[in-house]
Amino acid sequence: MKVAFQGEIGAFSEEAVSALFGRATADPCPTFEDVFTAVEDERVEYGVIPIENSLFGSVHVNYDLLRTHTLSIIGELHLRIRHHLVTLTGASLESIKRVHSHPQALGQCQEFLKNVLPHAEAVPAYDTAGAAKMVAAGNSTDAAAIASEQAATEYNLAILARGIESNHQNYTRFLVLSREAESAVIDRPGDIPYKTSVVYAMRENVPGALFKSLAVFALRDLDLYKIESRPLVGSPGNYLFYLDVGGSRRDEAIQRALEHLEEITAHVKVLGSYQVGTTIE
Amino acid sequence: MKVAFQGEIGAFSEEAVSALFGRATADPCPTFEDVFTAVEDERVEYGVIPIENSLFGSVHVNYDLLRTHTLSIIGELHLRIRHHLVTLTGASLESIKRVHSHPQALGQCQEFLKNVLPHAEAVPAYDTAGAAKMVAAGNSTDAAAIASEQAATEYNLAILARGIESNHQNYTRFLVLSREAESAVIDRPGDIPYKTSVVYAMRENVPGALFKSLAVFALRDLDLYKIESRPLVGSPGNYLFYLDVGGSRRDEAIQRALEHLEEITAHVKVLGSYQVGTTIE
Repeated sequence: MKVAFQGEIGAFSEEAVSALFGRATADPCPTFEDVFTAVEDERVEYGVIPIENSLFGSVHVNYDLLRTHTLSIIGELHLRIRHHLVTLTGASLESIKRVHSHPQALGQCQEFLKNVLPHAEAVPAYDTAGAAKMVAAGNSTDAAAIASEQAATEYNLAILARGIESNHQNYTRFLVLSREAESAVIDRPGDIPYKTSVVYAMRENVPGALFKSLAVFALRDLDLYKIESRPLVGSPGNYLFYLDVGGSRRDEAIQRALEHLEEITAHVKVLGSYQVGTTIE
Repeated sequence: MKVAFQGEIGAFSEEAVSALFGRATADPCPTFEDVFTAVEDERVEYGVIPIENSLFGSVHVNYDLLRTHTLSIIGELHLRIRHHLVTLTGASLESIKRVHSHPQALGQCQEFLKNVLPHAEAVPAYDTAGAAKMVAAGNSTDAAAIASEQAATEYNLAILARGIESNHQNYTRFLVLSREAESAVIDRPGDIPYKTSVVYAMRENVPGALFKSLAVFALRDLDLYKIESRPLVGSPGNYLFYLDVGGSRRDEAIQRALEHLEEITAHVKVLGSYQVGTTIE
């Protein structure tokens, strides 16, 4: 079985693929859109994408792709993001002149770089795992990468400093995408609750519209896991709403709530029903 | 009058300061927290911070600072983010070997860099304006920066390519911070509506809690501009909510709604009441 993710082997998304699918073949794609098309074109069975991060908020671009493509969410996972300084064996903090990584990882480890490697040059890379790959391919103890444990293992690099990110409360939520809406293929055994993800837009300028849209869930005692309004650029006063509600669309209460939501909104798209995910620390 | 912002002279935040305050002295600070303390310690009159971006979502770190500091929001502004390729006079696309900018700006212009300057090295900088300053201080036509129009003007650089960001629907919302809750100092004349920003947390595991909290506004026909749930890391099932509601806290309906909200939540913090902001294209 093949599972597409964005980035190189050793990226955090690949770690999510392993945690979710065990021994599936993780298939790296250059862009998020490539992940969607790889699944749609049946080149892979599933896709895995990041959807929100505890420090940086929602990945709007992936919500846009979920809206415009036809795939369903069938699972989720929360992954703690830990960054390590990785090098060839034989390198030391004193020998490092350049640190390669994805710009966001360089930003997250800014404090470490300033305090511990003030003279090293920060060099942006395509992604964290790509940076590790490059360091592994070179033969210089001048170069280090900021990358995951998985990337260090994959490219046989030494970890010179662990957990160098400034804020340790850094978690990314990943979603599993499938051509079929059926989540049973990756469901865990036991009495694990489901959630359903929905994107919708209200009719124009209806007062209290958001409240009414939440009423369709509250009236049925359904719990919300997430609600976020996103202003539509170029259309003042109009919003998209991202909402995660407790329950599966196989449940009658959810079905009725979604029918009710369609009645009062301009459009609704159900993105999928899936088990509440585990957290990998 | 002095207004603090994060970044260098020529940063987008400084552009927001100019648009909001005209001829005030814009006072650059290294971090967002420094902006808050500069206002609190009365070294400056006001502060300006980014709070959300149309592509990258909410700046959670600034919501955290708003929660833990004592300042009030007294105004807002939406600014279109346009990136230009800026150089010393005499440079050309052919002469450029290195492009300096903030990692996020490099990311936003990735497509342009790949297509037009495939052999140039992308070098991360402290911020876009800092990159422009560095190019201006050097005397090499090898180097370019990705920066704002304001930075090009400030550092007397030529604009070699305009609007090179991949996604043009890129707007940042900025907030004005003050020691006093009174917004009249920067209010525009005319019948411009107000909004009030609030952060709150629900009591633990109350079913339909979010719905009830929105009811306090809906029952009074108050409109919502923004609602966002943010999971509290390390505290599963607990959330912070960011909410912007139409009206000023001088209005009786808003006062009653906020009292009502306090009644049913674990804690509420009113961040400020201010006029709905303009958009600078």
